[in-house]
Amino acid sequence: MATEANADALVLSDDPRHPANLIPELCRNFYQLGWVTGTGGGISIRVGDKVFIAPSGVQKERMLPIHIFVLPFPQAAPSPHTDRVFLRRPALNLKESACTPLFWNAFDLRDAGSCIHTHSQNAVMATLLWPGPTFTISHQEMIKGVRIGGIGRTLSYLDTLEMPIIENTPNEEDLKDSMAEAMKRYPDAAGVLVRRHGVYVWGPDWEKAKTQAECLDYLFEIGVKMKLAGLPTVGLF
Amino acid sequence: MATEANADALVLSDDPRHPANLIPELCRNFYQLGWVTGTGGGISIRVGDKVFIAPSGVQKERMLPIHIFVLPFPQAAPSPHTDRVFLRRPALNLKESACTPLFWNAFDLRDAGSCIHTHSQNAVMATLLWPGPTFTISHQEMIKGVRIGGIGRTLSYLDTLEMPIIENTPNEEDLKDSMAEAMKRYPDAAGVLVRRHGVYVWGPDWEKAKTQAECLDYLFEIGVKMKLAGLPTVGLF
Amino acid sequence: MATEANADALVLSDDPRHPANLIPELCRNFYQLGWVTGTGGGISIRVGDKVFIAPSGVQKERMLPIHIFVLPFPQAAPSPHTDRVFLRRPALNLKESACTPLFWNAFDLRDAGSCIHTHSQNAVMATLLWPGPTFTISHQEMIKGVRIGGIGRTLSYLDTLEMPIIENTPNEEDLKDSMAEAMKRYPDAAGVLVRRHGVYVWGPDWEKAKTQAECLDYLFEIGVKMKLAGLPTVGLF
Amino acid sequence: MATEANADALVLSDDPRHPANLIPELCRNFYQLGWVTGTGGGISIRVGDKVFIAPSGVQKERMLPIHIFVLPFPQAAPSPHTDRVFLRRPALNLKESACTPLFWNAFDLRDAGSCIHTHSQNAVMATLLWPGPTFTISHQEMIKGVRIGGIGRTLSYLDTLEMPIIENTPNEEDLKDSMAEAMKRYPDAAGVLVRRHGVYVWGPDWEKAKTQAECLDYLFEIGVKMKLAGLPTVGLF
Repeated sequence: MATEANADALVLSDDPRHPANLIPELCRNFYQLGWVTGTGGGISIRVGDKVFIAPSGVQKERMLPIHIFVLPFPQAAPSPHTDRVFLRRPALNLKESACTPLFWNAFDLRDAGSCIHTHSQNAVMATLLWPGPTFTISHQEMIKGVRIGGIGRTLSYLDTLEMPIIENTPNEEDLKDSMAEAMKRYPDAAGVLVRRHGVYVWGPDWEKAKTQAECLDYLFEIGVKMKLAGLPTVGLF
Repeated sequence: MATEANADALVLSDDPRHPANLIPELCRNFYQLGWVTGTGGGISIRVGDKVFIAPSGVQKERMLPIHIFVLPFPQAAPSPHTDRVFLRRPALNLKESACTPLFWNAFDLRDAGSCIHTHSQNAVMATLLWPGPTFTISHQEMIKGVRIGGIGRTLSYLDTLEMPIIENTPNEEDLKDSMAEAMKRYPDAAGVLVRRHGVYVWGPDWEKAKTQAECLDYLFEIGVKMKLAGLPTVGLF
Repeated sequence: MATEANADALVLSDDPRHPANLIPELCRNFYQLGWVTGTGGGISIRVGDKVFIAPSGVQKERMLPIHIFVLPFPQAAPSPHTDRVFLRRPALNLKESACTPLFWNAFDLRDAGSCIHTHSQNAVMATLLWPGPTFTISHQEMIKGVRIGGIGRTLSYLDTLEMPIIENTPNEEDLKDSMAEAMKRYPDAAGVLVRRHGVYVWGPDWEKAKTQAECLDYLFEIGVKMKLAGLPTVGLF
Repeated sequence: MATEANADALVLSDDPRHPANLIPELCRNFYQLGWVTGTGGGISIRVGDKVFIAPSGVQKERMLPIHIFVLPFPQAAPSPHTDRVFLRRPALNLKESACTPLFWNAFDLRDAGSCIHTHSQNAVMATLLWPGPTFTISHQEMIKGVRIGGIGRTLSYLDTLEMPIIENTPNEEDLKDSMAEAMKRYPDAAGVLVRRHGVYVWGPDWEKAKTQAECLDYLFEIGVKMKLAGLPTVGLF
């Protein structure tokens, strides 16, 4: 690990678009959207060989750049014999986000530049009203904002959006394998829903990840409204 | 096209009411209303012989004046042999809004000074619960905020509001002809709904366009609530 | 009317609690609550012998102190032979709020210090789901925030709230008589609902009027939710 | 009581994390969430032997540090023969929050460092749709944000959340005994719902109390949505 002063330099910047400035700003945005209340959810940003991650259990709308963890990329998952490697840890009694292994799936398996996790009630209601293994919706303009696999070209209005839903586990870290499996089984999906929990969405960079998170949340919301109104969500009627 | 410096002068102003300042400010407002999430939707403003338009695919709540396109008005639609003409293009890798031909319908056919496009879920739900060619509602105070044809005198409380609904197309540009046709068939309508997509609303200037967009969105929202509650939306009961 | 400079002094103040500063600030607040979209609704404040009123048809969230009208109180209603009297008119092409005669009811009949008008959808839905002459609800903590007649002591948790609903008219001014009649028939009511339109609420001063407007809007909202869920709104169950 | 100048020093601080600064800031936050409209609800913070409490009946989103009461802790409940003791009273015509005895339950019975009271409609709807003595929900990720008894370790995803519901009384102070009784009967509960009124939630400090208030409000909201959609809220389906 770098010296402490060097390490702090990794998160202190006058540039509002520096990841350590963006993460707190975006978390305030997500708090307003109801995505990260109760310290849940968050966003990670990868720029080249560095990953910026928020701490676990902090109020997302009150986070500061000095709270941000920086990790080298790539790195293998920690094991009983190896610890996770950090370039910078906050000088506070903080632990990195419990979502870290899940964010890593997006970096490893999709070469994502950013991954967002929300506890949006729209996502959770979608997983309750779609009891099967996927959420599906078609013929909505907002489908055009979603990318194939989260990182490729955008979908067409004529495509049906299909998002895998995995079952929740008591420990967030334990979602890592089933999320990875869902990503392999549904290579075109831009995210993974977690039943009774929320959603993980990624993109090539933070702007595209955020755009997709908004489009998908919109689609969960309108899908739930349609389902509750007795309207089919796939196909024209 | 003007020299670059001259062109930038078209969007740089200390006046908060300059269109290049207003568009980003209004887009932040619309983002709060849930109208332009996921980079969707937007607003264009025409002042005399100049049209100010936002770029395509940018986060609407983070837009800046330097992102704005300026186009001369009038001008013919681009064709295989002619390009769209610009007075100013942002010095960034940006494309003008895909809504441009639709905004132009409002300028050409209604002499509008501003046109707003939203992906509001109230508009989309209205197009799903009104499966026919129009959305209709009567006996609501907010009808009085809507102008005949979007630019004439305001409706009376005793008037029934009727808004055409056109079918969505895979490419936004391809809505141009059906939107124009709907505007001709429903000359009194202040906007055009696009099924499973959103709404286009216009007015003589940006203030009146925004007022109408708010009144219409309110009417879509309460219309949807009434329909879901089993209440008729036209006529007294 | 005072000279123009003297008249402007009536609305220019460094005190954030001056009515001409409060009205724009509160209107921004009400816009966020969805009460005054599309230029609808507003608030008037009376301090002693002066009444401060917003203009008609302006965007409520963008209003400025210089837009405010000041009127002497008391004064008789304008007639074919007499005009309304002003102490100050904005030096712009503005007209006083169409709610002015309705606000005056609250000043004349209840000695109110402030009157608020909203187009809140909670109020409108309440008038649609309560088709009779009153909205009623009981056994809600928020009833305790409502004052008898809008200006007296607050209600008890054991009191049933009853609010008259009058029928809407094409011209807002024409509500004056039926609103006054409802105020006389229901002397304990803190406001008057207008079917398919909104609500008028008043109080001894702007703070108490706003508190009551919030409590009543809360009660309309939860009343509508209860009704739609099939729950009775009066009595325990 | 201290001299007035000394007393004011108890609420005047440049530190944004001083309780007298935090309470107004958090109340603005809660107002945005719809928890404290109409002057209802609030938050108290205890730091060591001092308790900071907001006044009764003030607009929570406009509160200032100078409005805050400071009380010594511990102290016995006031009786016919003894008054409540204060270290500082605002130099205004204000009374301490009517919730004070209820906040004290959390301090006395749970050694809480903060207690939050909201009138959230999610809480009230939960008390209406769960007519029995408790609200229960299971298999929701957000359960993991709630602590046993409000102050112990956090619940597991596999735990069922159970919150007691007490009946409302005309005077808020009269809830003291039934709240205390519910806290003793349900020692694991992080808060107490009050039917047709709202909820009291506490934690070891203001951050943990706020986190729990957000998690619980989320659970009330999604529980109500599930119930209205005909879904069971306890157990998998």
